[in-house]
Amino acid sequence: MVVTGYSVEDLALRNGFVSASIKATHGLARRLEAEGLGHLPVIVGYLSRREGLGERFGQPPGAPQNSLALLHHGELRLVSAKYHLPNYGVFDEARYFVPGDTLPVVRLHGADIAFAICEDLWQDGGPVSTVRAAGAGMLITLNGSPYERAKDDIRLELCQRRAREIGAAVGYVNMTGAQDELVFEGDSFIVDSDGELVARAPQFDDALLVTDIDLPRAKDTAALPAEVGGFRIVRHTVSEEPPAAYEPLTPVLTPRRSPTDDRAEVYTALVTSLRDYARKNGFASVMVGVSGGIDSALTATIAVDALGAENVHGVVMPGRSTTAQEIQDAEDLIRRQGINGRTVSVKPMVDAYETAAGLGRAGERDLESRVRGNVLMALSNEGGHLVLATGDKTALATGEGSLYGDSVGGFAPLKDCWKTQVRDLARWRNEAAAKEGGAPPIPANSFDRAVEGDWPGLPDPDVVDSLLDAYIGTDRGQAELIADGFEAELVKNVVSLVDRAEFSRRQYPPGPKISKRNLGRDRRLPITNRWT
Amino acid sequence: MVVTGYSVEDLALRNGFVSASIKATHGLARRLEAEGLGHLPVIVGYLSRREGLGERFGQPPGAPQNSLALLHHGELRLVSAKYHLPNYGVFDEARYFVPGDTLPVVRLHGADIAFAICEDLWQDGGPVSTVRAAGAGMLITLNGSPYERAKDDIRLELCQRRAREIGAAVGYVNMTGAQDELVFEGDSFIVDSDGELVARAPQFDDALLVTDIDLPRAKDTAALPAEVGGFRIVRHTVSEEPPAAYEPLTPVLTPRRSPTDDRAEVYTALVTSLRDYARKNGFASVMVGVSGGIDSALTATIAVDALGAENVHGVVMPGRSTTAQEIQDAEDLIRRQGINGRTVSVKPMVDAYETAAGLGRAGERDLESRVRGNVLMALSNEGGHLVLATGDKTALATGEGSLYGDSVGGFAPLKDCWKTQVRDLARWRNEAAAKEGGAPPIPANSFDRAVEGDWPGLPDPDVVDSLLDAYIGTDRGQAELIADGFEAELVKNVVSLVDRAEFSRRQYPPGPKISKRNLGRDRRLPITNRWT
Repeated sequence: MVVTGYSVEDLALRNGFVSASIKATHGLARRLEAEGLGHLPVIVGYLSRREGLGERFGQPPGAPQNSLALLHHGELRLVSAKYHLPNYGVFDEARYFVPGDTLPVVRLHGADIAFAICEDLWQDGGPVSTVRAAGAGMLITLNGSPYERAKDDIRLELCQRRAREIGAAVGYVNMTGAQDELVFEGDSFIVDSDGELVARAPQFDDALLVTDIDLPRAKDTAALPAEVGGFRIVRHTVSEEPPAAYEPLTPVLTPRRSPTDDRAEVYTALVTSLRDYARKNGFASVMVGVSGGIDSALTATIAVDALGAENVHGVVMPGRSTTAQEIQDAEDLIRRQGINGRTVSVKPMVDAYETAAGLGRAGERDLESRVRGNVLMALSNEGGHLVLATGDKTALATGEGSLYGDSVGGFAPLKDCWKTQVRDLARWRNEAAAKEGGAPPIPANSFDRAVEGDWPGLPDPDVVDSLLDAYIGTDRGQAELIADGFEAELVKNVVSLVDRAEFSRRQYPPGPKISKRNLGRDRRLPITNRWT
Repeated sequence: MVVTGYSVEDLALRNGFVSASIKATHGLARRLEAEGLGHLPVIVGYLSRREGLGERFGQPPGAPQNSLALLHHGELRLVSAKYHLPNYGVFDEARYFVPGDTLPVVRLHGADIAFAICEDLWQDGGPVSTVRAAGAGMLITLNGSPYERAKDDIRLELCQRRAREIGAAVGYVNMTGAQDELVFEGDSFIVDSDGELVARAPQFDDALLVTDIDLPRAKDTAALPAEVGGFRIVRHTVSEEPPAAYEPLTPVLTPRRSPTDDRAEVYTALVTSLRDYARKNGFASVMVGVSGGIDSALTATIAVDALGAENVHGVVMPGRSTTAQEIQDAEDLIRRQGINGRTVSVKPMVDAYETAAGLGRAGERDLESRVRGNVLMALSNEGGHLVLATGDKTALATGEGSLYGDSVGGFAPLKDCWKTQVRDLARWRNEAAAKEGGAPPIPANSFDRAVEGDWPGLPDPDVVDSLLDAYIGTDRGQAELIADGFEAELVKNVVSLVDRAEFSRRQYPPGPKISKRNLGRDRRLPITNRWT
């Protein structure tokens, strides 16, 4: 779906959008030809439709398909659609697509290469299971596989297993960049038919991975089956002749981050996500309310790494209970990172509200937070900056922040990071700076504050985060959580906080998904029907 | 799903939630028995699970099912699950449920009654198609069928057709009340085996519909099939003996609203929705910012009809450009309806923001709107009122309001009403008051203002609303809209407004769905990937 981006959600059900995708793909083929690249066979993922299928129940209108096409000499030579349609987590493909029923095989230099899309690689029994019988010497899969911590190793193991099953080399090509809440990490690679890793592209960076691999000479097409296990084998020949002998390239094997570098990987995912979100939504600069705490400090640091210090605007907004130390730490952060800074006291506005509306002090904390939200939005309106919400996943899960206050913004970089993860990422970022001989971007005081404060009535952040992760990330029930060793009273309190915060979570801006289960699209709950 | 409410979305994937539903249903059976009602056979819809099904791809974890059970003498005597799982609009049942494969038949007084759930009635080829062969004399369907304008007549026609197809009487039982964005209108009815309407319950009101109907004597069970078309017929006998002769009741046929009373029906749906949303979320009172315009006037009126004038708080919040006439009209509304009123000028706060943040006047309109949002939230924090957002569907579609200003609130009663519909509903409400000899609740000036103002750069509201309805409600593309006769420049402008407002729409509070396609759950678009 690289032509349209992924996912397009209900746009897949719009005829005009499907037509535009098909048109763009034909246009790409013609452009390649016009620019002298038509002789290169190019495989591209796009949104297409199954023609000639009438409307019927259980089938999305217009019969859209998640498809791939072979572009060659200005034309679409071969088209095939995804068969396995995932319908869980962030995926709703059973809602959007009609499944395919073909295995596409391209003959290039006398070798047969089969193609498949994403989930068809993961699930048994689809077109991938027919590759061996179809006689292909290599399988290349196109993936828009969202980033998740530590998922990459699963992918490699899967491809190694599939290579041995089908007796063919496997090329795994994955999208890079980000869209809305999804991050795509690249990390494309090739394994040979024994499952041996041959070449690997970098993680999170775009790359052109060029390598040489020995493939078996394809059989005569007449000797190959036209259908295997209910899947039609659709073929196109680009060239029958093997290339002349030449000196093979040395394979590229981008060194992997070591397993202990989970923090580096997550941090890069967050930077990638913010960079693409800003770019794709037309923002050149961002604005962050800087409090002296760890959440806003890390958010600003990610923004600097994504967009450059000159495009980051930090606003310090002291209120009635803000300490001089907090202001100093916030200003320290702005100075260290060289971002644009300004200070706006929220006290005059809070005073004005209280006088004009005759308010008591019941909602003072919420009011201050909302005034800060207004200041950010007003400055953003003037300067065209994307406002970043700084809340972390723990705050979002427990409803800690103020609706229309802390939740104000167009993007929330830490939305899927537990409070303890934020601390670890900030620590890693400072260490990384030190390794390069630089000053730590995040003031030490911001760390202390994160550990000390911010947890009214809740114990050790590590305990709370692991409880939250068990409840939200793995759907453990209350009885199970107590059996897991969490204190019963804490379980009750935390579960109640989480369930009651559903409304405000829904109003929260999008943010990068980095865990198996975040609090955005892949966890959909009704607002009523709490079951505390 | 009356035990859990509908829809429960991802809660269906939580084992603990499914277990709680099953436990509650068993508890209900025991309670009926304990209270001396155990002899009555009761059919209830609930969330259950298919036991003994291992985890596998394409099947939701825990194998939840949308089920019904026969409760009799303290036990669940018969359980069956929905077969057709709708996967469009507000429905995502393919994500949540494992389909059933049975037709349940209960023998009562020697007559056989089959049961089915909602979509199984609408689609061909499911368990309903086996009713005739299974020998049942009546089919009763359980429905949580969301309200849509003018849908009721389709339901009656469908049941009449099904009755003739299966040669059996059909009882259509529908939920009443509301949950989140869905409204359920009741309007339950019974047709005989010729499709003749026998009895009908009121629309939007709870009712116990008791009627007599002649049913054929059931055949010997041994002579009836155990399976039809792949569906197992599961049977339970409550009683074999027909009742002794008695004088039949006169059927109840609640008079239908006439076809011209579309406005009365929609208005009642909005009132029902707000009443249940407030109740189910624990709010006794609501708060509305009252501007003198038609949107806030109608919102306040709906609130009064839903919760009583004493539970409605109107806040007049004049700003720099507010006219004396607007203030007067807002105060007039508060007086007419007898709601709690207060006035809070937003000028001191706007001044404070401008001075403290050094703002120019670029975002003044947004700033004023956001200050109003803050005032409402602050007063709501003090008084525990549910804040109502007053925007209409036209404003929401075109991004007319200010994010965190007009969009502040827990519920948006007019979210699915076009601007022209709002005007018509308000007019109807005034007429209805006049018919009962009362004063019109909505000041005449508010109507004039709706027609004159609020449409910067856009033409006749009727044209814009019908263009929006074609674009959003029926997925017409730009070329098609121009072919439909809309002016090309207008199409381009309006489509661009709609596509760019996706982000702020997502942050908007829920509101009652009354059209086939609203701007909430049943229209899911990515924020990026606009295709203006």
